[in-house]
Amino acid sequence: MSMYPIIMSQGKFTHKDSLQFPYEERGLQFGDGVYEVIRIYNGKLYLLNEHVDRLFRSLDAIRIEIKQSKDEITTLLSELISRNNMEQDGFIYLQVSRGTAPRIHTFPEAIEPNIYAYLVNQSRNLEGLENGVSTITLPDERWQNCYIKSLNLLPNVLAKQTAMEQGCYEAILHIDGRVTECGSSNIFLVKDGKIYTHPATNRILKGCVRIAVERFAKELQIPFIEEAFTVDDIHDADEMFLTSSMSEVLPIIEIDNKRIADGKPGEISRKLQKAYEIDTQLILEKVK
Amino acid sequence: MSMYPIIMSQGKFTHKDSLQFPYEERGLQFGDGVYEVIRIYNGKLYLLNEHVDRLFRSLDAIRIEIKQSKDEITTLLSELISRNNMEQDGFIYLQVSRGTAPRIHTFPEAIEPNIYAYLVNQSRNLEGLENGVSTITLPDERWQNCYIKSLNLLPNVLAKQTAMEQGCYEAILHIDGRVTECGSSNIFLVKDGKIYTHPATNRILKGCVRIAVERFAKELQIPFIEEAFTVDDIHDADEMFLTSSMSEVLPIIEIDNKRIADGKPGEISRKLQKAYEIDTQLILEKVK
Repeated sequence: MSMYPIIMSQGKFTHKDSLQFPYEERGLQFGDGVYEVIRIYNGKLYLLNEHVDRLFRSLDAIRIEIKQSKDEITTLLSELISRNNMEQDGFIYLQVSRGTAPRIHTFPEAIEPNIYAYLVNQSRNLEGLENGVSTITLPDERWQNCYIKSLNLLPNVLAKQTAMEQGCYEAILHIDGRVTECGSSNIFLVKDGKIYTHPATNRILKGCVRIAVERFAKELQIPFIEEAFTVDDIHDADEMFLTSSMSEVLPIIEIDNKRIADGKPGEISRKLQKAYEIDTQLILEKVK
Repeated sequence: MSMYPIIMSQGKFTHKDSLQFPYEERGLQFGDGVYEVIRIYNGKLYLLNEHVDRLFRSLDAIRIEIKQSKDEITTLLSELISRNNMEQDGFIYLQVSRGTAPRIHTFPEAIEPNIYAYLVNQSRNLEGLENGVSTITLPDERWQNCYIKSLNLLPNVLAKQTAMEQGCYEAILHIDGRVTECGSSNIFLVKDGKIYTHPATNRILKGCVRIAVERFAKELQIPFIEEAFTVDDIHDADEMFLTSSMSEVLPIIEIDNKRIADGKPGEISRKLQKAYEIDTQLILEKVK
């Protein structure tokens, strides 16, 4: 994981070492901000419009106004890549907080949001994409507005840490047994040729890859049903997979030490992976 | 609200302008940290042990280990006051995050927590203490581990902003009608000479002034009952008040534009305010 030297801050480009934040930054003291992580393949941003749309939905939801338009953000992100001559696989991390002001819960008057973005190299998880990953289940203890991609990520941090310590890739979160999403990905169950996933209510973040998967499913004529499934339903699942910008379409082969079906990535997961690759115009030999 | 020039950072004392954080600070990107706000009267820290105990409970809960002991933290905070020659009313803000590392949800290995504290002047809210404050009710949309005083404060920020825009001091939060706490304070209902408040479960932060009020109630032989009351119960309340380190024992005279009882601070609220003043060894002429 190496980082590129030029970052974007307040709409300008600067060296990464020059960006520091005062201790009264509202991201730092309240998590009062939102963010996006956008996948890059060969130096090209994937699902950029979906991410920028969501950024603005998140900003609206917590009432942060930035002076840049969607088009200007898009241009800034593209310029960040070109200024760094980035041609690898990786991602952009983009964050907007309400700004810096003496600490008070309510919105301070007349402050400017802090916006910054940087680039990181990261290769695809080819091993996981090929063989699938293991997961655990945990209660979803997050707040009720998970549709906002906010900086309040402590429950996600703790859930993913618990998963990692049990040798697993992700934690599948549920409210009283109803599966919502994972620590940092959406989750899907396949049964009798149909894809099930939690509806995009306030309880989940509507992932950009989730949007893409819905589109792939339509193209492939696979029913895509927005209906919550339960932890119990998992035992009868034909397939399971999760999606995120970093994970792509990632088969789940195990939950709580129990195999999903025969413990191998399923057919529909493979079809969606293929559709994803076509969509990203990737040619990858290692993943079928 | 003026700030003192010397702050504490990583156990050392430095000028406030010298403390800045990199953009990959985990407080900033995940809210992965905890904090305390400790009241100061005449340069003396109030309920210091309660705050330091809670800090360590919060740190334990999210598994951040700091190298300082409770005694060392206490000494550092006292030294912060003496180094600034602070003799006014105000507060210390103290924050600990997991540290700085390339962004990944799980705990990074071998990083040092970031700890800092600073002093702010702030006088007492004498007008509010004398006349009481107005409030609104809102659904409690926070996560399920509010007993941790974490930096994930976005729901609190939004609730307090909504209250402020309706001309109110605080938002009273409830889960399906059961009152938990406020945006940044504990809440109490008085009925037939008894004090009711939500039990100190994971759903509320156990305030240090709440601990003091429990002690005052015992001394005054007023029953202190840890039992959730409902929004409906409020209409029949004899008195309501809220507590926090900054608000002290603050009478509530109005909820959702409706008066509590006769719309004036009640007798038990006054007794607790007096006990608070004795406890803080304050002599204040303006508040009865």
